[in-house]
Amino acid sequence: MQPTHSFLRAALRLQTESTPIWIMRQAGRYLPEYRKVRARAGDFLSLCKNPDLATEVTLQPLRRFDLDAAILFSDILVIPEAMGMNLRFLEGEGPLLEPALRSTLDLDLLHPIDPESHLDYVMKAVTSIRRELDGRVPLIGFSGSPWTLATYMVEGGSSKNFTFIKRMMYSDPKSMHRLLNLLSDCVADYLNAQIQNGVQAVQIFDTWGGVLSPRDFLEFSLRPMQNILERLKTIGPDGQQIPVILFAKGCAAHLETMAATACQVLGLDWMTDLGQARDRVGSRVALQGNMDPAILHAPPERIQQEVRDLLASFGPAPGHIFNLGHGITPDVSPEKVAILVESVHNESQRLRQERS
Amino acid sequence: MQPTHSFLRAALRLQTESTPIWIMRQAGRYLPEYRKVRARAGDFLSLCKNPDLATEVTLQPLRRFDLDAAILFSDILVIPEAMGMNLRFLEGEGPLLEPALRSTLDLDLLHPIDPESHLDYVMKAVTSIRRELDGRVPLIGFSGSPWTLATYMVEGGSSKNFTFIKRMMYSDPKSMHRLLNLLSDCVADYLNAQIQNGVQAVQIFDTWGGVLSPRDFLEFSLRPMQNILERLKTIGPDGQQIPVILFAKGCAAHLETMAATACQVLGLDWMTDLGQARDRVGSRVALQGNMDPAILHAPPERIQQEVRDLLASFGPAPGHIFNLGHGITPDVSPEKVAILVESVHNESQRLRQERS
Repeated sequence: MQPTHSFLRAALRLQTESTPIWIMRQAGRYLPEYRKVRARAGDFLSLCKNPDLATEVTLQPLRRFDLDAAILFSDILVIPEAMGMNLRFLEGEGPLLEPALRSTLDLDLLHPIDPESHLDYVMKAVTSIRRELDGRVPLIGFSGSPWTLATYMVEGGSSKNFTFIKRMMYSDPKSMHRLLNLLSDCVADYLNAQIQNGVQAVQIFDTWGGVLSPRDFLEFSLRPMQNILERLKTIGPDGQQIPVILFAKGCAAHLETMAATACQVLGLDWMTDLGQARDRVGSRVALQGNMDPAILHAPPERIQQEVRDLLASFGPAPGHIFNLGHGITPDVSPEKVAILVESVHNESQRLRQERS
Repeated sequence: MQPTHSFLRAALRLQTESTPIWIMRQAGRYLPEYRKVRARAGDFLSLCKNPDLATEVTLQPLRRFDLDAAILFSDILVIPEAMGMNLRFLEGEGPLLEPALRSTLDLDLLHPIDPESHLDYVMKAVTSIRRELDGRVPLIGFSGSPWTLATYMVEGGSSKNFTFIKRMMYSDPKSMHRLLNLLSDCVADYLNAQIQNGVQAVQIFDTWGGVLSPRDFLEFSLRPMQNILERLKTIGPDGQQIPVILFAKGCAAHLETMAATACQVLGLDWMTDLGQARDRVGSRVALQGNMDPAILHAPPERIQQEVRDLLASFGPAPGHIFNLGHGITPDVSPEKVAILVESVHNESQRLRQERS
């Protein structure tokens, strides 16, 4: 049974009438209505944990823009919290995870998760968003990759040089693998629970795979993701295939290797040439991306030009999902997003007509 | 006249008895003797501006380790200061350049530089270091690339999203090019003055080229560097060729394009596979790099293993200068650096003997 939504069709490399678009962090601080709900919730984590408010902010961008998918509003760090760590978001400072995991003894403090109970608020949000969406567009679920989650857990938050996790990786690879294995189990269970509750596609964010040497990326980032891919449900409760998007920032050197995994879509950052990436992966996967988010500060004509360039660079084959190469930043004006979304649909339709 | 020093020979892809090594930021905070001189100087900028102290810290790592090159102790931001901006380094905060350049009117405040007068303290340091080195190892000079310098000047310091410079790039490319042209002139004059005063090789640091899309990298980062390369003196006052090292972090996608410029050496970050890079550039340039600096936190055997892996991966052709893939971090123990340097020399000599 082939899907009808253009986002799901493009993810499976089926023809679409226009190129679908969604935007990483489309439910976010650049929207005044998001900032209002966020203020009402108190803090960021309370917003994530309130299924009604999470539903509301997930839907907000869809009311403004003709986006082709919704993405669950949540945070990748709910997993470490569910495993027993203390999570806080300090205003303007980024996340804090305590106590930071520095030794194999620290790992003893973690426990496996039962997503339906430890992360019940996420599952409630998924159910509620699906009900509100009422089939209009598909809902994307997500998780951080094991390596990316591990960086926050070992560093105790964000990091610049990744000193502590690399110390563990190079000096105590056994503990490193123990943590990554534990996380692979949690992420697989978590994504499967999201699918069971109704998400129609999932994205795995490997935000920090790009700080690893090629050999280390394969061992510490890609292999755990492959373990997850092998364990994910491929068909949802409604009988539809669940496409998996792998987004590994700064990892364009590994496109071919990533395309050979069980994922359906590769997300690209904007440092990667879309046309070259298309040539390199051939018809093995669909591609998602990859406009520089900063172009949203440019005048409308420049945004439209960039859209035309990217669509032309991908070429006529099916299998392109338009997106930014990274999350939208809070300083972008929503008017520019409207121009982007409209332009992607109009230009891609025009291109298809020219070609037929 | 071929050079005798192994660093210069490797830069020109000539045979050497062992693989030469130097370390980015080898004169730096990981050395207790550096911290002492730094405390005496007061602040970082005063240290850069004092030729005697700059000479002292440049020589410090050479007293401890058998390094094959010295690198001038200075900072890339002395150029914007010499052009008329106000430069401060706040403890633990990174640099501040004021007023940040946000419009074409702001650019009017900048003036071209005469390196011999505006940056006389650098030229004095070069002369003094050469005298102290007394031919033991060659001295490397350096500059930031125009694009990298421009990021600090437009953002007013370090940046995360490069919002302001990208706004200029996408909304006012004319001003962006005006600034980059001005900087290209300054950098070329500055490096030529360093050469005239005695540096025997130069490195151009493009620390932030990696935040650009492929098309933007070519236009805003690589083209200005090419302009500089075309204007650099190729022969020093002693009649020796001056190799130019291009180090563009996060730009491995552009290796072939960079290898086709007039540079002699490409510096690699640790996210690039050294053997693959060697295959991609062939015999057009030498390669410098590229161990993950974090491996210096690992036990000695792990460091030695990494050295063996990298040397083997580069293979038997001449033209490898060992280095880290980025600057050494302040938290590294000097004992580990000793192990690294010794290991590079011993292992590379052993490999040559095995092969002959």
